[in-house]
Amino acid sequence: MANNKSNKKETKTHSKQSKSTSSSSKKRSPAKKRVERVKKPAVPLRIAFLGGINEVGKNITLYECGDDMFIVDCGMLFPEPELLGVDLVIPDFTYIERNADKIRGIVLTHGHEDHIGGLPYLLKTLNVPIYGTKFTLGLLEGKLREHELLRSTSLNVVKPGDTVSLGCFDIEFIRVTHSIPDSVALAIKSPAGVVVQTGDFKIDTTPIDGEVIDLARFGELGNKGVLALLSDSTNAERPGYSMSERKVGETFDRLFSKADDKRIIVATFASNVHRIQQVIDTSVAHKRKVAVSGRSLENSVAVGTELGYLKIPDNTLVSLDMVNRFPPEKVTIITTGSQGEPLSALSRMAFSDHRKIEITPQDCVIISATPIPGNEKMVSKVVNELMKLGAEVVYERIHDIHVSGHACQEEQKLMLSLVKPKYFIPVHGEQKHLRKHAELAQGMGIPEKNVIIGDNGFVVEVKKSGIALVNTVPAGRVLVDGYGVGDVGSVVLRDRKHLAQDGIIVVVATVDQESGVVVAGPEVISRGFVYVKEAEHLIEDARRLASRILESYIGGGYSDRNVMKNRIKDEVAKMMYERTKRSPMVLPIIMDI
Amino acid sequence: MANNKSNKKETKTHSKQSKSTSSSSKKRSPAKKRVERVKKPAVPLRIAFLGGINEVGKNITLYECGDDMFIVDCGMLFPEPELLGVDLVIPDFTYIERNADKIRGIVLTHGHEDHIGGLPYLLKTLNVPIYGTKFTLGLLEGKLREHELLRSTSLNVVKPGDTVSLGCFDIEFIRVTHSIPDSVALAIKSPAGVVVQTGDFKIDTTPIDGEVIDLARFGELGNKGVLALLSDSTNAERPGYSMSERKVGETFDRLFSKADDKRIIVATFASNVHRIQQVIDTSVAHKRKVAVSGRSLENSVAVGTELGYLKIPDNTLVSLDMVNRFPPEKVTIITTGSQGEPLSALSRMAFSDHRKIEITPQDCVIISATPIPGNEKMVSKVVNELMKLGAEVVYERIHDIHVSGHACQEEQKLMLSLVKPKYFIPVHGEQKHLRKHAELAQGMGIPEKNVIIGDNGFVVEVKKSGIALVNTVPAGRVLVDGYGVGDVGSVVLRDRKHLAQDGIIVVVATVDQESGVVVAGPEVISRGFVYVKEAEHLIEDARRLASRILESYIGGGYSDRNVMKNRIKDEVAKMMYERTKRSPMVLPIIMDI
Repeated sequence: MANNKSNKKETKTHSKQSKSTSSSSKKRSPAKKRVERVKKPAVPLRIAFLGGINEVGKNITLYECGDDMFIVDCGMLFPEPELLGVDLVIPDFTYIERNADKIRGIVLTHGHEDHIGGLPYLLKTLNVPIYGTKFTLGLLEGKLREHELLRSTSLNVVKPGDTVSLGCFDIEFIRVTHSIPDSVALAIKSPAGVVVQTGDFKIDTTPIDGEVIDLARFGELGNKGVLALLSDSTNAERPGYSMSERKVGETFDRLFSKADDKRIIVATFASNVHRIQQVIDTSVAHKRKVAVSGRSLENSVAVGTELGYLKIPDNTLVSLDMVNRFPPEKVTIITTGSQGEPLSALSRMAFSDHRKIEITPQDCVIISATPIPGNEKMVSKVVNELMKLGAEVVYERIHDIHVSGHACQEEQKLMLSLVKPKYFIPVHGEQKHLRKHAELAQGMGIPEKNVIIGDNGFVVEVKKSGIALVNTVPAGRVLVDGYGVGDVGSVVLRDRKHLAQDGIIVVVATVDQESGVVVAGPEVISRGFVYVKEAEHLIEDARRLASRILESYIGGGYSDRNVMKNRIKDEVAKMMYERTKRSPMVLPIIMDI
Repeated sequence: MANNKSNKKETKTHSKQSKSTSSSSKKRSPAKKRVERVKKPAVPLRIAFLGGINEVGKNITLYECGDDMFIVDCGMLFPEPELLGVDLVIPDFTYIERNADKIRGIVLTHGHEDHIGGLPYLLKTLNVPIYGTKFTLGLLEGKLREHELLRSTSLNVVKPGDTVSLGCFDIEFIRVTHSIPDSVALAIKSPAGVVVQTGDFKIDTTPIDGEVIDLARFGELGNKGVLALLSDSTNAERPGYSMSERKVGETFDRLFSKADDKRIIVATFASNVHRIQQVIDTSVAHKRKVAVSGRSLENSVAVGTELGYLKIPDNTLVSLDMVNRFPPEKVTIITTGSQGEPLSALSRMAFSDHRKIEITPQDCVIISATPIPGNEKMVSKVVNELMKLGAEVVYERIHDIHVSGHACQEEQKLMLSLVKPKYFIPVHGEQKHLRKHAELAQGMGIPEKNVIIGDNGFVVEVKKSGIALVNTVPAGRVLVDGYGVGDVGSVVLRDRKHLAQDGIIVVVATVDQESGVVVAGPEVISRGFVYVKEAEHLIEDARRLASRILESYIGGGYSDRNVMKNRIKDEVAKMMYERTKRSPMVLPIIMDI
């Protein structure tokens, strides 16, 4: 896997060096430090926000210092429903492509889609080395293989504590806890000073893998002086602390005991390996076999097991084909679909459309997730359908069946108090999250002028003397639809919306080019407008109207076809609106012979 | 308003009579009661659920007893996004129309859209008297006027405590509290026994209008013996009690004090007259003028004022055109759009698209509502945009800016304990709500066999000896799109969905009928598929492909045009998928001359 591709000797990581450097610098007096800094020419540090600000998704940040640049993360965004037919949304890479010769590498904080999902599209035009932890690169490999980019890409495995040099930047990886293994924050050391970017994090002091967030390192950096902090704002609306992942394990144990005569089906996020581990551990404790349903989960279990992040005792996993051979109380099924996604395994089960699993009153379904905003109704639908089949469904927040992977307010404050940054930039969130996070920071004593709420496309210059917006660059959204990247724009979307609302009416006729006499048609064909069999009159009246319009041009010499088409379009549209109060798209076609 | 149309003398309400009857029956011994019942022939009572079960919306219930039937409520449902282009969803009236001669009237519990919004469509084929409280009929009048049904409809105002006789039914109206004034529950007295239908309710002992829910009457009925209870399940997932509406007034006072240098904009539901009253009262106390923005709110304020439900001191209301003449701290604007609806007044303000109101950092916006499931993201968008314009936005639940109008678990249990029904039928909710409500009832000692979770279309027979599903009748959803009622079905929706995803490609050619020679075209026109200017090759290749297919038929005699069209459709679709991984609708048209 990742190890095969990476060549750690080539990688300029220098775990020991950086540590010794930092410990020696620790002993330097502030005066000496100042002297040393003066020697270096003050190359300004710039941070370009190309995604992830004022949105939850497609996170990507570009750091610039003189002629050196590097990228942190490159995520995607699942399209909102109004982006009809769009498969996914990626960042606009214009600014990166313009500076391609300066990009020294890409650094990844963790393997979630909103942090790595846009990478294959970027790598099609930019070939630079990628640095990330083992699990992150393990997930990325699968993506690159699909896009036939694996061979051409240099993947470099790093560990927390490692430092990578990219041009004038030294980037140190710091362990954090999150809802996916092997997540890291970054301490970015530039000539202008140190910037800490948390990546996605929560403060979990009892994580499943025992790998606790390295709070001490954040504190050390803070004590030495951090210029700016970019911190995860996702949960800035939530007071208090997020619960430890371990809490969910206790819930599983309780629920498994209660449902000890039923089959148990647990739906969760595929990438949450620790959650999967807890389902497996609880199943083993309760003498249940475990089967996995859903492609992304199968992939996650495979990568997790292969890289050693998931520990599954022998004779625990069974294939989905086998589950019906065991009594219900001896089986757990882990499945995708915790967000109610219509094509997911859980959705298929709920709508009796799954090839292998049939839901009965013998099932207890645990939805170990909280609906992501926008998915509430889809999740409800699945819950309702499962209940109609007689299943018991545990889905409510009060049952402690899920914990968030993001820091709540008290954790965000703890991070701020450890890092003690001069400047604060809340990232990873909508405006309301960024604002709340900014208010928290100000409440802790960071002056308002030292806090920037940015936007995608902002280039911010960070200097000891101040922080300022110095430039804006292209950073819109690029829509991916099938193989097309960026070819679906506002015109296509507007047409799709129009078609979706009221359908289309095609009016087609063939006319003699010279005389204008109609030699075939007009025919009127509709789709998505009315049920034609019940609306024959309407369609026939439209045909007659078009016919009258066409005939009015006969004998007047050659008429501009666009004028004729526009008249048909306007008059048919008007008639349809008057008769039906609907506004289908009218597409007139006039062919000449 | 309602008074003009209703003729209370004609209405068979008999407030005094019913009260005396009930008080006398109270004194009868149980033995005597039993004897009296035996005299009457046992006409079975049937309840047909035509909407509102397994959904939140389009509530409608039909009661049948021998040759007498009546309807409780007739609501609509706002369409889910997948019902592309559909304006609203109403119940299927087939079963009602089939029994039109037996329907004695329609009884309304309150004036929300999900209880009265379907009425105009029903009244187009069924003309029976309607009974409701003054405010309910006041709102209905506006609807009927729009549909030109006001003159032909008999509207009869009732008061809580009144009883209306419809055939063998006596229907008593009982005051309840809810998020709209003048809401009532029904005690339906039939030869088979008494059924209580709560309508939408909460237990608010300090409502704004002082009209407390008549718990005593529910208790009286319970003591005398209630056969079945149909109760509101909306909040069956929520433990505890809902807060009193008065609580929101306290919040307003606190927020108005805090924002005393700002203009205040409060978004709320138009029909929540008590909420509007509290905004007005707080504004008056804080010496602010009040303006109203949004058509439904203007209507609600007009009806509420005219009928005496809303008390606005003189010189308080100002027109929206006037607000900019006052300093910000002297103005409150009440607006629609608390659900983030894209065309609402608040949405327009947020996106700087409102003709009269411009949002600035001088604004404090209070969203006095909770997002209805499915609207979360739209509300977030509006909050984010308002914040980007610098406004302070108070939108989070923790601020106590909204209370629900529906009973939470403890209130539902209180209702159950007062009414003490033999049979329990949870209504008004999705499966998960109905199930939770049923579990509550069972937890209170109602045997499982006496609880029915129904479905739309169920006809349930309620007898002393048992409750059973005896029939199912048509009760699907009827889609309204423009003037069309029911003409948008699965074919049209499937086409709209297809068009929405990938657009359409029209391939059109004119051929000589005898020889098959192509005399015009083929032309290829696309909409919503690709941006044509960037995909000229693709379109040209499709044209050539169609041309080749058409030419292959030349000289073979007359070919079936459908066969030719299907080949074009299949091959063009295949080519497009291979080249773009998209599946546009392909519409081939062959015209003959």
